[in-house]
Amino acid sequence: MPPNTLTTDHAPEALAPSRLESFSDGVIAVIITIMVLEFKLPKEPGPTAFITEVAPTLAVYLLSFTYTGIYWINHNHLLHRLKRVDAPILYANLLLLFCLSLLPFATSYVLSEKFNSFSVAVYAGELFLSGLGFVALSAAITRHFYRTDTADPVRLATQKAEARKGVLSMALYALAVPLAYWHPFIAVAGLAVGTLLWIVPGFMLPASRHTV
Amino acid sequence: MPPNTLTTDHAPEALAPSRLESFSDGVIAVIITIMVLEFKLPKEPGPTAFITEVAPTLAVYLLSFTYTGIYWINHNHLLHRLKRVDAPILYANLLLLFCLSLLPFATSYVLSEKFNSFSVAVYAGELFLSGLGFVALSAAITRHFYRTDTADPVRLATQKAEARKGVLSMALYALAVPLAYWHPFIAVAGLAVGTLLWIVPGFMLPASRHTV
Amino acid sequence: MPPNTLTTDHAPEALAPSRLESFSDGVIAVIITIMVLEFKLPKEPGPTAFITEVAPTLAVYLLSFTYTGIYWINHNHLLHRLKRVDAPILYANLLLLFCLSLLPFATSYVLSEKFNSFSVAVYAGELFLSGLGFVALSAAITRHFYRTDTADPVRLATQKAEARKGVLSMALYALAVPLAYWHPFIAVAGLAVGTLLWIVPGFMLPASRHTV
Amino acid sequence: MPPNTLTTDHAPEALAPSRLESFSDGVIAVIITIMVLEFKLPKEPGPTAFITEVAPTLAVYLLSFTYTGIYWINHNHLLHRLKRVDAPILYANLLLLFCLSLLPFATSYVLSEKFNSFSVAVYAGELFLSGLGFVALSAAITRHFYRTDTADPVRLATQKAEARKGVLSMALYALAVPLAYWHPFIAVAGLAVGTLLWIVPGFMLPASRHTV
Repeated sequence: MPPNTLTTDHAPEALAPSRLESFSDGVIAVIITIMVLEFKLPKEPGPTAFITEVAPTLAVYLLSFTYTGIYWINHNHLLHRLKRVDAPILYANLLLLFCLSLLPFATSYVLSEKFNSFSVAVYAGELFLSGLGFVALSAAITRHFYRTDTADPVRLATQKAEARKGVLSMALYALAVPLAYWHPFIAVAGLAVGTLLWIVPGFMLPASRHTV
Repeated sequence: MPPNTLTTDHAPEALAPSRLESFSDGVIAVIITIMVLEFKLPKEPGPTAFITEVAPTLAVYLLSFTYTGIYWINHNHLLHRLKRVDAPILYANLLLLFCLSLLPFATSYVLSEKFNSFSVAVYAGELFLSGLGFVALSAAITRHFYRTDTADPVRLATQKAEARKGVLSMALYALAVPLAYWHPFIAVAGLAVGTLLWIVPGFMLPASRHTV
Repeated sequence: MPPNTLTTDHAPEALAPSRLESFSDGVIAVIITIMVLEFKLPKEPGPTAFITEVAPTLAVYLLSFTYTGIYWINHNHLLHRLKRVDAPILYANLLLLFCLSLLPFATSYVLSEKFNSFSVAVYAGELFLSGLGFVALSAAITRHFYRTDTADPVRLATQKAEARKGVLSMALYALAVPLAYWHPFIAVAGLAVGTLLWIVPGFMLPASRHTV
Repeated sequence: MPPNTLTTDHAPEALAPSRLESFSDGVIAVIITIMVLEFKLPKEPGPTAFITEVAPTLAVYLLSFTYTGIYWINHNHLLHRLKRVDAPILYANLLLLFCLSLLPFATSYVLSEKFNSFSVAVYAGELFLSGLGFVALSAAITRHFYRTDTADPVRLATQKAEARKGVLSMALYALAVPLAYWHPFIAVAGLAVGTLLWIVPGFMLPASRHTV
């Protein structure tokens, strides 16, 4: 086997993350805006029809937009110190994008079903899946750091803390499935907490990440 | 706390603006073109049906396209000297993108309601929101310059002038809400003036910006 | 007026073309693929229904895709030696993107009207508009070369040749409008010639461009 | 003829692949996510309606997403050592993008027809076309390496191995067309094998590619 089969973080054979980033940006840009096509003109003129017919779609859109936006920001942080990508990272990223792309539909469903138990459980399941995609991508990156000998202690500490945070919100999302059958709104509160953890990207991570 | 918690404009921890730009480009590209899906083939052949059925959609599309295009150009200018981005910038940018994504619908609404008072007020409100998103992003950038000690006088003067311009057009948009109930077309004129300020990106800004 | 009001091609104030490119790529990517949403499943199973119901949409899609693809390639060539962009370039580019975004609809219209005189005239008008957008962008770039003292003879010769080619196809497109009322298929032939000129980007341009 | 008509891989005249990549990313991002618009809210509440009405769309979406994702990853690998692009590469890439954009429709069709012989043959034909686009792009790249004197043995070996792999899956796809009329599910198995070859990008390629 020739010596260049040994990949390092700077091996010319390995792909740079630029296309992974631009492709993910494109996919998330479509996901985050595609719901504007759902806006329908109200059937009657005037404020009442506008509020009763447009407001629910607007609420769904705002929710999905916020959720997807938070994921985009954390995806941004997750990838930004990566110099090279490998196949497992590319596939884990595709898995995350797939899960995220189902969010607008799940949000739409939970609102159209007026937060009944089953719809909240479906929504919690979708958040669980997205969390799983994120943790899988994080794990693929940690594995890559080990394989390319670029696993310095600072990076590893950040990766570990982020994975722990990811598993914690997945636990909250999983817990929300049975909770939805006991009391949907307590389940929704659990989902909200699991998501709020991610609003400040550096929260629960080592100090050097707090600054960004 | 380790020394690298002190961020500067070049701290390796901080994110570069490249993904903020490419994501915004993607979102605005979807917003600006998604309305072409609204074009329907006229029900009858010949020029009359073409003009009466296609022209209104075309007018709405042209208006939204122009407005979104102006925002894109000013967004371009706002970001182009930024070396690093932080979480408040990312969130303010998401807010701006959210507001912009509602423009096609608001334009569609005001035209379908034939510029009645309520619809013009809604449209003015939407322009006000987009202006707010732009001013919020500008403020987040100014704050970033201060926090990273990169707030040189030229930058600050530009930022201040741009914020002043933003607040001026927001005042015009806010004024248009009551005006719409007095006389919708005077309100529309106010909205047009608030927007025309932004056609030449360097207008009302310090000299070095006039050149671009 | 301070000395930095004098822009050069490398003035830090001026915007780099990277976002112009990525935004245009995003808009053209949406334009070129959005028509796949028009594909409807045939109402009956089997080859006959598939061919009669799917084939026309496929033909429209292939035509629009090809046309937009040719524009994208020439846009690519037009911009690639530009180091900085200014406001007229940004607006001319928006004009071109606007015109291009109407192509799928115009193609759809001419096919649904079975190439009658009016529809061919509309299609010729749309191609004329797109050509105008391209020539306007080319002119804005030439003006930029002069203003930034980067108008070396090779560049100018290329710009001039490209503008001449643009005006020639616009003349063919304009001629097709009256021709459509005489004989639609001769008009279509004129449109085809006007477009074929652009398939090889370097055709009719000075030698150094032939190589790419 | 001036000396600069002789292109090399680094000739300033030649286009860099950055826009080819960002345009392809944009088009593939739209293709891969556009199917989420097909998701309809179930007509009745509860798990039964959810599963019977949403699950089939989800299955189609997952299939198309996976297939397009695999193509994106291999496209990524195919382009990543290219320094310059020429017109044949740009057109071959457009051909590939066109073929890929028909995948969601073909997937939808084969599922709505419940895998009957004709629909499986259509699907196999679509996979064959996409494979053809990929092999054409690969051939355009090999030709470019020869023309720019950048055809070093390692690159050529990779290109040749990739082309061989492409032709092998095209053969499997072509074989699936008659097989579909004998037994559709054996044809589907052939299609699956032809696709599985591409899941690990470096599979069947020289060793240095195995590492990424």
